[in-house]
Amino acid sequence: MTPVERAQMAMILEVTASPKPGNVDRCHDYESTRLEHFLSSAILARPALEKAAGCSGGIGEILKEAVRLTTAHGGGNTHFGAFILLVPLLRGGDIPGAIRAVNETTVEDAVRFYQAFSLTKVRMLPGDPLDVADPRATDRIREEGITLFDVMDHSRENDMVAREWVNGFRLTRRAADELHRIGCGREGIVGAFLSLLATGIDTFIVKEHGASVAEEVRRRAGEVLAGREDLGAFDAECIARGINPGSTADIIIAGIYTALGEGWEWDCSRKE
Amino acid sequence: MTPVERAQMAMILEVTASPKPGNVDRCHDYESTRLEHFLSSAILARPALEKAAGCSGGIGEILKEAVRLTTAHGGGNTHFGAFILLVPLLRGGDIPGAIRAVNETTVEDAVRFYQAFSLTKVRMLPGDPLDVADPRATDRIREEGITLFDVMDHSRENDMVAREWVNGFRLTRRAADELHRIGCGREGIVGAFLSLLATGIDTFIVKEHGASVAEEVRRRAGEVLAGREDLGAFDAECIARGINPGSTADIIIAGIYTALGEGWEWDCSRKE
Repeated sequence: MTPVERAQMAMILEVTASPKPGNVDRCHDYESTRLEHFLSSAILARPALEKAAGCSGGIGEILKEAVRLTTAHGGGNTHFGAFILLVPLLRGGDIPGAIRAVNETTVEDAVRFYQAFSLTKVRMLPGDPLDVADPRATDRIREEGITLFDVMDHSRENDMVAREWVNGFRLTRRAADELHRIGCGREGIVGAFLSLLATGIDTFIVKEHGASVAEEVRRRAGEVLAGREDLGAFDAECIARGINPGSTADIIIAGIYTALGEGWEWDCSRKE
Repeated sequence: MTPVERAQMAMILEVTASPKPGNVDRCHDYESTRLEHFLSSAILARPALEKAAGCSGGIGEILKEAVRLTTAHGGGNTHFGAFILLVPLLRGGDIPGAIRAVNETTVEDAVRFYQAFSLTKVRMLPGDPLDVADPRATDRIREEGITLFDVMDHSRENDMVAREWVNGFRLTRRAADELHRIGCGREGIVGAFLSLLATGIDTFIVKEHGASVAEEVRRRAGEVLAGREDLGAFDAECIARGINPGSTADIIIAGIYTALGEGWEWDCSRKE
């Protein structure tokens, strides 16, 4: 499997793994965002992923292309957070390489990233000093010499995907380790997902529903892992309330990409 | 969307469309062949599909490569029948082009096809004069000057996928027409699937379960379309009995590829 195929496989394996509390999965759609939107995004992003794995194009430009290729469908943003992690991982090959790649990002990468952001419907936190909807944001980036790494550093508090860039892809590493520990296939993915959900606040839930809902999800994921709450019922309630741990899903994708490169087996039937 | 992306999308849209009586779909796996095997096959076949869409390599050689790329997983044969249709469609661009491409196949294409066949677990009909398990089969192909088109012509009675090659991709055309008639997305695919199932015998079911079971499935698909039998219950019974209309699924994939090229919309949310 080539690195790009690993990235595409990570996207399809994550979205089809089930049951994952609150997310689009094999058994659940949201009205406007459906399983097919995620699967098509894994297919259609390929040219951008190939550029990331090759030597052509900056990370910001590639992120913009990935978003452009995958927002043609009507399902809104699907894999934007995943691309923010996969593009440096593909450029660097693995986590140490990705750490080098994000540290080398430039002001031009930051400008392109803001252009990519404005193509999505991703919500910013109120009061973010660099509002993507503000046409002067890119001027300010150039004037102040802000790199894409600086942008992520700025967002580290409020965005767990951005935080990966500045703390050495810590949760990506943890997700991959959980996959190795729990085992092959779908069960490994669901287990790693619950494990991440139980130990940290999903910042996408914070943006959509506030901190107390995000904390409730964290606590109840722990109850599921402890066998005190039913996974299916928790999933159904999250879906009904529109509570969707999207940033945890992005990190799981990066973790699957990493684990596949380290020999983790997506196909349990090959082990039989 | 490039032609190769259309082929990949056709494979993922077909397998995730649900409910389809008896087949692996979004809600059903077979023990040894799971949704992920089909999705991974759509991702991993790409280099072969690119060759088919380009000008390099014969159709037999490309089919062999497609099978080699997609049998690395433990799920056995997933898309072999679909590749038999998609490779000439990609080479020719559309149905008229595919008709030209299959007519130009050579003896060497036939030899490679038999090598591809022997990599799969696809069952032959007893008494087939060209048994793929027979090491002398390729000698006989060369001695008698049998082209890949001749091989398909030989199998036209017993294999509805082979029959497409020699009758102008008649059911592929019909599947695409049904998609246009029924409408966008998942509902269109399920409707086209039932329509094909109700009007012809699925030869894969004949191979696995005999002609009378295949005829029962044809008749009951008609009852579902007429509203006299419940689709979900029929699906559940087919799954329980291991009755899997795999050749109809292959033709639906070719039909989706064709319809996408003619403007059929896979994403109903884009029409809203």
